[in-house]
Amino acid sequence: MKEKNKNSELGQLTANTIRLLAADGVQKANSGHPGLPMGMADTAYVLWSKYLKHNPDKPDWPNRDRFILSGGHGSMLIYSMLHLSGYDVTLDELKQFRQWGSRTAGHPESGSLPGVETTSGPLGQGFANAVGMAIAAKMTAARFNTDEEHLFGNHNVYCFMGDGDMMEGVSSEAASMAGHMQLDNLIVFYDSNGITIEGNTSLAFSESVKARFEAYNWYTLEIDGHNHDEIAEAIERAQSVSNKPTLIITTTHIGFGSPNKQDTSEVHGAPLGAEELKNTKRNLGFPEDKDFYIPEQVSQLFAKRKEELLQISKEWYDDFATWQKNNAQKAALYENMMNRTIPENLEQDLIAALPEGDAATRAISGKIMQKIAEKVPALVGGSADLDPSTKTFLKAYAAVQANHFEGRNFHFGIREHAMGSVLNGISLYGGYIPYGSTFLVFSDYMRPPLRMAALMHAQHIAVFTHDSIFVGEDGPTHQPVEHIAALRVIPNMLALRPADGVETAVCWAMALRRQNGPTSLLLTRQNVSALQREADFKTEDITKGAYAVARAKDNKPQVVLLASGSEVQPAVEAKTILEGQGIRASVVSVPSKELFEQQSVEYQRSVIPESTEKLVVVEAGVPFGWQGYFQLPLLMIGMESFGASGPYKVLAEKYGFTGKSIAEKVKAFVAA
Amino acid sequence: MKEKNKNSELGQLTANTIRLLAADGVQKANSGHPGLPMGMADTAYVLWSKYLKHNPDKPDWPNRDRFILSGGHGSMLIYSMLHLSGYDVTLDELKQFRQWGSRTAGHPESGSLPGVETTSGPLGQGFANAVGMAIAAKMTAARFNTDEEHLFGNHNVYCFMGDGDMMEGVSSEAASMAGHMQLDNLIVFYDSNGITIEGNTSLAFSESVKARFEAYNWYTLEIDGHNHDEIAEAIERAQSVSNKPTLIITTTHIGFGSPNKQDTSEVHGAPLGAEELKNTKRNLGFPEDKDFYIPEQVSQLFAKRKEELLQISKEWYDDFATWQKNNAQKAALYENMMNRTIPENLEQDLIAALPEGDAATRAISGKIMQKIAEKVPALVGGSADLDPSTKTFLKAYAAVQANHFEGRNFHFGIREHAMGSVLNGISLYGGYIPYGSTFLVFSDYMRPPLRMAALMHAQHIAVFTHDSIFVGEDGPTHQPVEHIAALRVIPNMLALRPADGVETAVCWAMALRRQNGPTSLLLTRQNVSALQREADFKTEDITKGAYAVARAKDNKPQVVLLASGSEVQPAVEAKTILEGQGIRASVVSVPSKELFEQQSVEYQRSVIPESTEKLVVVEAGVPFGWQGYFQLPLLMIGMESFGASGPYKVLAEKYGFTGKSIAEKVKAFVAA
Repeated sequence: MKEKNKNSELGQLTANTIRLLAADGVQKANSGHPGLPMGMADTAYVLWSKYLKHNPDKPDWPNRDRFILSGGHGSMLIYSMLHLSGYDVTLDELKQFRQWGSRTAGHPESGSLPGVETTSGPLGQGFANAVGMAIAAKMTAARFNTDEEHLFGNHNVYCFMGDGDMMEGVSSEAASMAGHMQLDNLIVFYDSNGITIEGNTSLAFSESVKARFEAYNWYTLEIDGHNHDEIAEAIERAQSVSNKPTLIITTTHIGFGSPNKQDTSEVHGAPLGAEELKNTKRNLGFPEDKDFYIPEQVSQLFAKRKEELLQISKEWYDDFATWQKNNAQKAALYENMMNRTIPENLEQDLIAALPEGDAATRAISGKIMQKIAEKVPALVGGSADLDPSTKTFLKAYAAVQANHFEGRNFHFGIREHAMGSVLNGISLYGGYIPYGSTFLVFSDYMRPPLRMAALMHAQHIAVFTHDSIFVGEDGPTHQPVEHIAALRVIPNMLALRPADGVETAVCWAMALRRQNGPTSLLLTRQNVSALQREADFKTEDITKGAYAVARAKDNKPQVVLLASGSEVQPAVEAKTILEGQGIRASVVSVPSKELFEQQSVEYQRSVIPESTEKLVVVEAGVPFGWQGYFQLPLLMIGMESFGASGPYKVLAEKYGFTGKSIAEKVKAFVAA
Repeated sequence: MKEKNKNSELGQLTANTIRLLAADGVQKANSGHPGLPMGMADTAYVLWSKYLKHNPDKPDWPNRDRFILSGGHGSMLIYSMLHLSGYDVTLDELKQFRQWGSRTAGHPESGSLPGVETTSGPLGQGFANAVGMAIAAKMTAARFNTDEEHLFGNHNVYCFMGDGDMMEGVSSEAASMAGHMQLDNLIVFYDSNGITIEGNTSLAFSESVKARFEAYNWYTLEIDGHNHDEIAEAIERAQSVSNKPTLIITTTHIGFGSPNKQDTSEVHGAPLGAEELKNTKRNLGFPEDKDFYIPEQVSQLFAKRKEELLQISKEWYDDFATWQKNNAQKAALYENMMNRTIPENLEQDLIAALPEGDAATRAISGKIMQKIAEKVPALVGGSADLDPSTKTFLKAYAAVQANHFEGRNFHFGIREHAMGSVLNGISLYGGYIPYGSTFLVFSDYMRPPLRMAALMHAQHIAVFTHDSIFVGEDGPTHQPVEHIAALRVIPNMLALRPADGVETAVCWAMALRRQNGPTSLLLTRQNVSALQREADFKTEDITKGAYAVARAKDNKPQVVLLASGSEVQPAVEAKTILEGQGIRASVVSVPSKELFEQQSVEYQRSVIPESTEKLVVVEAGVPFGWQGYFQLPLLMIGMESFGASGPYKVLAEKYGFTGKSIAEKVKAFVAA
């Protein structure tokens, strides 16, 4: 047996190959972060060469282990591992690191490169995504495994996290959830290198990470991150732990191998420089004149590993085929969920399920969701401790808890940020349409994962209720005024604000059908009435973002009132008042401003006819972002300030959102 | 000596008075949260009747203890305590709880009611504000106390937090900072009542809070929150602890006293109901037909306490007068800091300090800040582990650390959210102009405290660097595109995007002079050149939000290019190209769109002359929010998507932000 604390020659050679590929990539790009890959190269070597189960030829093998590099700035590490492991990632692509049009982006981007499970970089996100994936694995296992066959979710989720991930609050939230959920399929390496951008971590960070994670119900280990035996032993111990996630506190030297920059903040986020790169190669026993050098033995090692992996994966697919034959019903469900199938006539079913009478759109949504749960088995989700208010609990189904992963409802606790990031992980895992709910004002707490979902084109439904000042008595701390606009500005975020039951039903269906990005559903706290629509109304009109709810006589309005959500009804009231005063007005409901702007000019003109002289927007939010259409004069009736405490009907009076008040303002505007 | 575990009769009577005032207030408003006040009434009684040092007649007494109700939904608790303690808060105001125009808002609002130290409600914010106040107290002590006199920061910060605060990530970040800073003047009661909105906390929360806080270097205690002796003893022990903040885990019954609703989630956020309120009064030995009832003994108790407090405060003011006489220099500094004095000619000093040649506005800002630090002693701040990139370290001054509170620089760690909330606390404490810095894309992580600063009218300078896709190689995870717009939508947030050195200097001065709200400074990663301006340029033009940098001949443009930040220079280049093609163009720099919109039409017309036929906006962010002016046709050259990895000059080509590309687009637009 070889001496403890001494790595094998091949192991050391491989680890050094990994660290130098990273250092070369960063040097060539003249931009990037060599410190992390150089520090974690040993762990990456041990994990990827011996333990990680995946399929480089079929990166979407469902039962693969997931590998998440939460510190996405160390992207050259994962790119190097993918190349070495035999993925469709060429050496030339490593050389094109961070360049325009290259798939080897500055930070790893899900969907851009095979084997990249999530987009990471904004710290804490990858870790929380990993928690979501571990949950999804357990949910999939609970749904599809049989007594005979454990084909599903029968794998681990591995994550590398750093000091930055560790300090971010979202990681605290997600770690607490992971411990609560007893995610023993989650194995996290904490790259503890004592260095951050400003210097030594001790400048800002003196807590005991070990004690903190044990408080969260994690199993913890401490190892030397450059000792391959210790790394291997830690992985094996973590794999055998039950009912707890594992944190392996991996002490490393950032920039390991660089004679002059190792253990300094300098090596975190800048190239080594040509000279020091040479020094490093010399120090590690590599030829200093060769770049992107991969010794033959290292290639062979990974080629052999790939063969093993392909065999493991092949056996799985064989077993899967057998399972499909023997479990027709489960197999059909599996297919349904993996495709995130939505029944063709869902809209009609949901409309048929609408409650009678006035109701808040959050309450309508709650009713609809019960029907969706029945029709769309992929739907799972929960609330950040607000489901009695957001009405998002799927009543016919259990809660997801440790040992109850068959459930469909999450109790996320008061952790909006982790909710969003965990849902992203569940979405990326595959087979689920995840939703999360909270009050719209708290969308601020989960903005980073909303952005990530948009950037990753990940399906993610955010149910944001209490969507305006009409929250009322809770006052301005709880009244969103800028949040509708703040969601609309995120590229690839679809923000939908339905005005009544029919719109809520159609908007839910739109969110369910939208597989390539996040959708926010903005719902009222207060009651709304069902709109009386024109005879030629079709539900598809709603999907165009805007449509005429009530037209002026002969469809020749002087003024068109554009309104969304709960402001549509008072706009209709204003129209009636205006008509009595001889002013020809139409009312247009705008569940999505952005979708309307994407329609043809013909469609837009059908909604805002040529006769229109002026436009009015009525929305109880900041006016920001409402462009005029067709160069028409525009009056925006919105909120220029935060709100105030008071019953919501009083607020409607005070801030001018009653039909009467709207009519007065429009009258003056038309006359101007 | 009285029996252990048995409260005195007067103590019990007082606690019950507090809980019933809250229950009555919520019942009358038919809205609110009785559970928390009823559960924490005992702790509030003990703390406010015996320990809390404050001055009801002079709520801004600098050396008062700070009391923060982080769970702001329990607002009736603090309103009741303020009324009982003799603040200018009438019984009638308690009866007007949550009504339009009342100062007793749904959640406590700083500045609205005397004795309310911060606006709380969004969970975790109050706790993190308390951490900031404890830091500020120590900083003030370090600056002004002498060997003889300990008049400053010689007090505690008390905070009530609940399960929601405890689960939010921002509290984890702030608690880790507080432990690191060894804030032994911070005493936090964790109201552990086992109940959240969705039911039992165990649905989502099974960590050991005690072990977690000990891991953060906190002293912890566990007490029965209904036992007055235990509460008093805990406070005294906490007061005597050195080098650690204290967490008193206070086990309570939510809705204590309600026979049918105590210990249920029902009592968290809804009135007890008329019947149950009567039951509760009966159960607590109170007359069931009396509302807002304050027994005479209770009034007397607080009247006596007020006398003691006024005496304590009076002695302090006497000592303060002596200190002023004996320490003229310190006294002048104190006055300067408390007033947040900005020298009249600061702008000129800063302009004089500008570096020569091309530079990134973040680098220019870094230079300027050294000068500001010298001229404005109130300026303190730091970065979320990015100061080498954001350039915000004040080089002539030390870092703030445990035992080094004389410093002016913070190492916040990778904790943007807590940074924002802690800075709000420092701002509210008084005497400081706090700034925090990170990359603009990470403003998403600290959006909740930015909103709170805006809502509270708290001065807070956010230095956001790397402000566009021109971050370059780091790619879309690190390239803000929607963030400028997302900041602009927050009411009372001033977002400033300077184009060169002179603008950066003036924008910094604007931020320093703006005492009633937060300012975001958006700065480039990449170099910009100093603009060549018109001869009649005055630095005040910048403060108007927009001004003409380069005018068309005779000030008669066909087209006006509005640009901000690093896009002003290419817009000027485009103008030159356009002129060569016979198109009359002016370029307007817009450091603040919102300020420009507040100017008189005369001023706006001086910037966009009558001759203007069309407008072009050039900003490397989402086009959202740019309204046309004067009904002019508008072309927005912005970003409709997330960015991509690549050198920033390549991105400028690809996304069309070069002078040439802008000129081409404008030409086509003018011809259209």
